[in-house]
Amino acid sequence: MNTDASGIAPRTEPPFTRDERVELTPANEVELAVALAAASGLERSSRAERGRWLRAIADAVEAYRDELVAIAGEETHLSAARLNGEVTRTATQLRFFGDVVDEGSYLEATIDSPDASLIPPRPSLRRMLRPLGVVAVFAASNFPFAFSVLGGDTASALAAGCPVVVKAHPGHPRLSRRITSIARDALAAASGPADALRLVEGMEQGTALVEHPRVTAVGFTGSTRGGRALFDLASARPAPIPFYGELGSINPVVVTRAAVATPAQVAGVAAGLAGSFTRDGGQYCTKPGLVFVPDGAGFEAALVAALEGAADGAGVTGAPQRLLTDGIAAAFDRGSVALAERSDAELVFAGERAADVASPVVVATSAAAFVAAHEAYLEECFGPLTVLVRYGSDEELALALDVLEGSLTASIQLAPDEDVAALADRLVQVAGRLVFNGWPTGVAITWGQHHGGGWPATTASVHTSVGATAIRRWLTPATWQDAPAAVLPPELADGNPLGVPRREDGVLVVPAG
Amino acid sequence: MNTDASGIAPRTEPPFTRDERVELTPANEVELAVALAAASGLERSSRAERGRWLRAIADAVEAYRDELVAIAGEETHLSAARLNGEVTRTATQLRFFGDVVDEGSYLEATIDSPDASLIPPRPSLRRMLRPLGVVAVFAASNFPFAFSVLGGDTASALAAGCPVVVKAHPGHPRLSRRITSIARDALAAASGPADALRLVEGMEQGTALVEHPRVTAVGFTGSTRGGRALFDLASARPAPIPFYGELGSINPVVVTRAAVATPAQVAGVAAGLAGSFTRDGGQYCTKPGLVFVPDGAGFEAALVAALEGAADGAGVTGAPQRLLTDGIAAAFDRGSVALAERSDAELVFAGERAADVASPVVVATSAAAFVAAHEAYLEECFGPLTVLVRYGSDEELALALDVLEGSLTASIQLAPDEDVAALADRLVQVAGRLVFNGWPTGVAITWGQHHGGGWPATTASVHTSVGATAIRRWLTPATWQDAPAAVLPPELADGNPLGVPRREDGVLVVPAG
Repeated sequence: MNTDASGIAPRTEPPFTRDERVELTPANEVELAVALAAASGLERSSRAERGRWLRAIADAVEAYRDELVAIAGEETHLSAARLNGEVTRTATQLRFFGDVVDEGSYLEATIDSPDASLIPPRPSLRRMLRPLGVVAVFAASNFPFAFSVLGGDTASALAAGCPVVVKAHPGHPRLSRRITSIARDALAAASGPADALRLVEGMEQGTALVEHPRVTAVGFTGSTRGGRALFDLASARPAPIPFYGELGSINPVVVTRAAVATPAQVAGVAAGLAGSFTRDGGQYCTKPGLVFVPDGAGFEAALVAALEGAADGAGVTGAPQRLLTDGIAAAFDRGSVALAERSDAELVFAGERAADVASPVVVATSAAAFVAAHEAYLEECFGPLTVLVRYGSDEELALALDVLEGSLTASIQLAPDEDVAALADRLVQVAGRLVFNGWPTGVAITWGQHHGGGWPATTASVHTSVGATAIRRWLTPATWQDAPAAVLPPELADGNPLGVPRREDGVLVVPAG
Repeated sequence: MNTDASGIAPRTEPPFTRDERVELTPANEVELAVALAAASGLERSSRAERGRWLRAIADAVEAYRDELVAIAGEETHLSAARLNGEVTRTATQLRFFGDVVDEGSYLEATIDSPDASLIPPRPSLRRMLRPLGVVAVFAASNFPFAFSVLGGDTASALAAGCPVVVKAHPGHPRLSRRITSIARDALAAASGPADALRLVEGMEQGTALVEHPRVTAVGFTGSTRGGRALFDLASARPAPIPFYGELGSINPVVVTRAAVATPAQVAGVAAGLAGSFTRDGGQYCTKPGLVFVPDGAGFEAALVAALEGAADGAGVTGAPQRLLTDGIAAAFDRGSVALAERSDAELVFAGERAADVASPVVVATSAAAFVAAHEAYLEECFGPLTVLVRYGSDEELALALDVLEGSLTASIQLAPDEDVAALADRLVQVAGRLVFNGWPTGVAITWGQHHGGGWPATTASVHTSVGATAIRRWLTPATWQDAPAAVLPPELADGNPLGVPRREDGVLVVPAG
């Protein structure tokens, strides 16, 4: 195959034969990547093979950790500590999806035996999920490992049996190429199909990917504007495909009056918030961007103290951070200045403003002003900024919560034994994950995780991009009716030879471990 | 509430108060229906209540069976036998979703206990699906019971806890109103929320429903053209919502050479096909509309004999049938004439053409002609028509299968012990249900059923409109992190007091029945 180890077709060499000099346009670059991915045969691999391949990729990423962290540091300005943690997270996630495919319940294997007495009569029906085919994954800038080339979208798609064409994020091109090459080599060394992972770069290539007839689904993490444009493309295709986008998120936090009844409580909540919204320059989709605080609790002074203490060296929370890209830095500057200069807002804290770093910014407003101008306040400002909304009464808080849009998370800071059931019921309408006495940053990779929410947090609230069920985005059901044993997948065979959890005549049966 | 028992706001009476005479426009008709549905409180009901309500509706439908069948017969021209069967199917389906909610595994309850040693650390995470909110259901014409007001979309949505606003099909308005009224009375009599089911009528009302900000998802069964238009509306909303549409389907059948090696086999397969494509006037989304038959097997003569025998009184297969609506009858006439008059096709059979009935039509063509003009041949012709595609070799068959689009079903007629694994692998790329030595009409309501396929069979191949998992369309995940016990749904409580199947620290646990 005339491509280099990174899986990118070289721009100076013809992709097909030496005699037939084909110029690589964005469209035929994508054509080549999709064709090679489709030809990889990943769909026909066994679950055991895919589990092994995912672990081989995880091992390779950790083996090249130092080199990868160094490249990522140069390209993203994130700290080595943060990037090392992210490498571990990425490897853990790849191995986790290995466990998910090994366990096998994600297949939803279901067996109904025939019953002619029913209306309508029931034939033998056996159902299972199968991979959709080649999928496209758009990498994010803010997690150069965990939401990029080998992030959760890719890990879950490969686990499902779907070859992946990744659209690299321009914020870390060298890292994207290098990690693709490492993963492809690891696949090949484990007797797997290297072409199950391909990389393309460039805006036009991204568009061509979403429109390619053989691409069956798209995973995306990024801005609301970019995500909406691609969602619209996917929906407008002659044959539309699912677009699983994780777009902006404001992550509201409600601090109850009882939670900040004493100065010690106020200081504790303020310190927690300071740490969460400034972490790694506030460049998280789960950054708490909107905090409802009770009037007169002294919360603002405590937050300023926490941020100033940090700037004085007591912690890292207030430290300036060079943002991921110049574009993000410029947008942060624009967004924070616009909020701070609003006539209905008040600047509570602003760190030093320097040429190429961003410092924390805190803006406050009243619940009434927030409701009146909620569209402006709900616009995500990526970076170390949070907005405090002061509320007087529960009624004022309720009115303010009514204007919220979909979000990945919502958090409640409450007092011990405080009854927040009604508040939680309200917030679960808004967010996919409710956090109690904690902060939304940090998304564990588990069976029960949900990373999604209503628009604009995700393009449809029925999917997650983190956690075991992320695999379901890349699968489609098939039912075999009265099928001869020879055509059935082994997971649907009589006697359950592979020992997967199955529903048999309506009853979930989990084989003894 | 100033609306009649049918749940339709009366057009001559003001919907709000007698003093404030509001004129009912399509938009405020929908506004009223959605507001009342949202206020019904169905989301807050327990699974036990919803199971009871679904069974109460099922009982009521059966109690009014004779009246309902009589109205349906007048409006749809379907036979009393067929309509009675459909009433039973509808009641069975409502009770089946009662069983699905009782069993509770559809909630996907998942519990992860905290583990601070992981990277990232794992808090306590508890995940479960919850109802999306008010949903819209567009009724179909061809199943006035089973895919209409109380069809599978409504049954699964109510089971999920989502209030439903149905857009009535204009093909059976009186039936739609009467059955809505019966269901609402049954809900009220069982102490349930009657407004969890509302009915609206009219095209503009349908559009307003899809665009209504409080509508969270749409279920649709109907034509590709109508479905595409509504899908586009749902996708273009400021906050897009999932549109679960079941559109056209051609349902290819492959008859292998070995399956028709003897005259008895040929006659058997031909009789089966004759019965399936003409059943109830061929007005099924699963009608076999395209049949690949081996050249020279004598299949056409046998099919003609089967249809003529039927017309002679030997069966009902060839009998003329008045179609559901004049529009469908006109489209059938146009479509069948256009196919029969093609220069690359041959008219194999045409029953008597009379003013207001449709008779079976069979058209044949070669595999080469089919491939060359596949767009014309793949257009669904709703009614008693099927197209035979004659193939010579396996290679010719393979080329023809390559141009197929997504379909609800694909069927294989094979000989005993014949190896059709490769053919089945090919067809599962096309269709959501593979039928072996059977016919696709008749869709059992079971745990393992799948009624979906790629575009244009369904708007996304990841959902079904028949079978237990249809409930998942109306649900969204929520995860509670470090939540106090008081805010958790009972299905996520410690000790599993409601005894639902749960995943606990990665292991599926099914409580002993």
